[in-house]
Amino acid sequence: MTVIHAKSSPAPGRPDAATIERLSLALTRRFGNRVISSLAVREQHGHTTTWIPNQPPDLVVLPETTAEVAEIVRLCAAERVPVIPFGTGTSLEGHLNAPLGGVSVDTSLMKRIVAIHPEDLDCVVEPGVTRKELNEHLRDTGLFFPIDPGADASIGGMTATRASGTNAVRYGTMKDNVLALTVVTPSGEIVRTGTRARKSSAGYDLTRLFVGSEGTLGIVTEITLKLHGIPEAISAGICSFPSVKNACDAVIATIQSGLPVARIEFLDEVQIRACNAYSKLTLPETPLLLFEFHGTDAGVREQAERFGDIAAEYGGSGFDWTTRAEDRSRLWQARHDAYWASLGLRPGSRGVASDVCVPISRLAECLAETKADIEATGLVAPIAGHVGDGNFHVMPLVAMEDPAEVERAEGFMHRLVERAMRMDGTCTGEHGVGQGKMKYLAAEHGEPALALMRMLKSAIDPNNIMNPGKIVAA
Amino acid sequence: MTVIHAKSSPAPGRPDAATIERLSLALTRRFGNRVISSLAVREQHGHTTTWIPNQPPDLVVLPETTAEVAEIVRLCAAERVPVIPFGTGTSLEGHLNAPLGGVSVDTSLMKRIVAIHPEDLDCVVEPGVTRKELNEHLRDTGLFFPIDPGADASIGGMTATRASGTNAVRYGTMKDNVLALTVVTPSGEIVRTGTRARKSSAGYDLTRLFVGSEGTLGIVTEITLKLHGIPEAISAGICSFPSVKNACDAVIATIQSGLPVARIEFLDEVQIRACNAYSKLTLPETPLLLFEFHGTDAGVREQAERFGDIAAEYGGSGFDWTTRAEDRSRLWQARHDAYWASLGLRPGSRGVASDVCVPISRLAECLAETKADIEATGLVAPIAGHVGDGNFHVMPLVAMEDPAEVERAEGFMHRLVERAMRMDGTCTGEHGVGQGKMKYLAAEHGEPALALMRMLKSAIDPNNIMNPGKIVAA
Repeated sequence: MTVIHAKSSPAPGRPDAATIERLSLALTRRFGNRVISSLAVREQHGHTTTWIPNQPPDLVVLPETTAEVAEIVRLCAAERVPVIPFGTGTSLEGHLNAPLGGVSVDTSLMKRIVAIHPEDLDCVVEPGVTRKELNEHLRDTGLFFPIDPGADASIGGMTATRASGTNAVRYGTMKDNVLALTVVTPSGEIVRTGTRARKSSAGYDLTRLFVGSEGTLGIVTEITLKLHGIPEAISAGICSFPSVKNACDAVIATIQSGLPVARIEFLDEVQIRACNAYSKLTLPETPLLLFEFHGTDAGVREQAERFGDIAAEYGGSGFDWTTRAEDRSRLWQARHDAYWASLGLRPGSRGVASDVCVPISRLAECLAETKADIEATGLVAPIAGHVGDGNFHVMPLVAMEDPAEVERAEGFMHRLVERAMRMDGTCTGEHGVGQGKMKYLAAEHGEPALALMRMLKSAIDPNNIMNPGKIVAA
Repeated sequence: MTVIHAKSSPAPGRPDAATIERLSLALTRRFGNRVISSLAVREQHGHTTTWIPNQPPDLVVLPETTAEVAEIVRLCAAERVPVIPFGTGTSLEGHLNAPLGGVSVDTSLMKRIVAIHPEDLDCVVEPGVTRKELNEHLRDTGLFFPIDPGADASIGGMTATRASGTNAVRYGTMKDNVLALTVVTPSGEIVRTGTRARKSSAGYDLTRLFVGSEGTLGIVTEITLKLHGIPEAISAGICSFPSVKNACDAVIATIQSGLPVARIEFLDEVQIRACNAYSKLTLPETPLLLFEFHGTDAGVREQAERFGDIAAEYGGSGFDWTTRAEDRSRLWQARHDAYWASLGLRPGSRGVASDVCVPISRLAECLAETKADIEATGLVAPIAGHVGDGNFHVMPLVAMEDPAEVERAEGFMHRLVERAMRMDGTCTGEHGVGQGKMKYLAAEHGEPALALMRMLKSAIDPNNIMNPGKIVAA
């Protein structure tokens, strides 16, 4: 396989100024003031949320249709200029940076909701539609789109990063909720990856090839999504635990029992302390689980009570639950406020997101080692997790102006990832590879799998113009 | 993209006798009597269940380990001899045929259950383990593997065809239940496609690339599967409907209402007539829905009653349900006996399986047109469907000795597929492409998508030795 990879063209260098000038003229002739070259806009498009430096593209273009995206890509391909797809800019691992310059294709004008098919529980949207916009649009249909990564990300970006979030334990991730895609390939061709059939065995799974490919194989320009019926009833609640281990064991028992939990979230005592201070709560400063069940009124009541029984077996206390919307919000307030509450722990610092995922049998051990490491490293770093999937985030609050502290935090993040991989987990459960996690792919997947990924990239994008410097292509 | 495809090597012709003789010696030296060349065994490995002619491989080899599979593939690759993976031989579209001869790699000795992880609800198995063997092994764990394509297929074969069946509406298909794979690539390398983490955003989805690739990109030698908790309670029942449309509308309303139906199966009146005769039942000879709910005792009772309410709105009659195991079997007997009952409609004929899947909003229309076509064509052809997914099978009972009738049946099958594709459906919901459905891929996916599939095949298997003549490679 490495032989094949060696055949591929070398990564392009940064295009020279004359090339960019020529491309800029061609794009402007075609798209007018939808081509932007101001530094502020370019920096905003190359922004990152970590210590990865800002690497702005040379140009930003705002297409309105699939055909326009294809035109832009063909113009860039002809000049071998990099193309970086952009949604809302909420990615967390430097996916949007332009290390070799190039053109950021900003899909924020592509906001059409092309079709809603209530009988089939699916819809077709353009990539610039955000998940909240979609749910707002669906409001009167009795349907909703459950994937919730926290930020109001674009559907295109969520597709590109294989996003998930709190609801994934019940509703799956983007991998499970994308039925089909329209994609513009690196050569500017328009590919449709599937039909609206709920399942198919008709050939290679092109849809899943593009979901999670982070714009390195093409630009997603239309997404067919599964929708779900808004549950008749929701029960939600909380329960405190004496230790991380007890909380994790309660999660395992809940999942094993077949209870169809929709959300099950973990906050550690540092996070709780932050939330108590920020939101004037009085939660015990011990690990907390928050849960939610979706179903019929009788069903979600029974499920909440079952969860209470399981929690009690594992030393849970302060168990409280409700089906009333306003009370649910109150019980879940700590979770809703977690991000802002964390920043309050250390004003002026930046919260730097991490993301790992392990088999849930290893979760307690992974969390315990991680908490010991946080202490040994001297960091302030609350933990929140989508623990039904074994996925958790640590958010060190870093004084970015202190290089020694940044280095300590980086070292911690590195050990966190290595720990998760050692426990048969993954370096990223939902944030994606971007620039930040490239260095871990060989250790996680092994060289033969990585060679296969490189081969796919080389076959589909032989000139490496699609979002270069991400996932496997330098 | 077609440029890249054109670079690939041409399809191999049938290897000459000297090559096979040389390979046979090399394999026998290494694997002794696990290399078989008797015509009976070879024909059994090239068997089909349709009118596609038997095309036996030149040799059958039975490896015991991943390393042995890799050795076999490397020997074949060196001679450019085709390799055809074989599980239990239950595939339905000629996947196992060897149109260019070559070596059938029979995985039936690879039956180890490598690991069960009850806390993580997953297991690791070799490809020769059948789904029933796995469930037998899991019996005392409280867990089960839900995918049920009818036949007692091997897990390897089910992975290769992206199989599903009756439970898919709740538990998904093989796409959703494979966490990771070990695969031997066409060059004989061993690739691991993922970890045991429940979700990951760490690069291209190699797992889904191989699921459904029908042995054309490599041989699956180890499968990490999701398992599910055996439900505490199951309710099952039946309801008759005055028309196909009424039955389909009841299914749509059920799915839209968010009722977590585990199985919802459709039998048409021809199938019911067959079952009444075969199993001495007295069901009304009108369309029937059979349903099953999995959950807590109270939950599945409530759900069955809700379904009854919905069914009544759509003219359902004879609604009956139970939670007792023996009564469930009685109510579902028509479904369990459907295949043998159908053959009884026309003794001496062969039941030829078809498989399409459409968005459920089009299901009633698709079924109505199909039934009219059956009548116009003069076939005896009962219909059974996994209607929660919009997937259904028509099984014409064909007198295979009558070429005119075979031709009529083939014409009917062709129109069935075209009808499904016209309704934004797929030419195969679960059986796969094999040889039988290759001709539909261009119409279903469009030329750009098909070119992309060819590109993937060419990149991973440049000499086209892996199961040639299937999916996209001649």
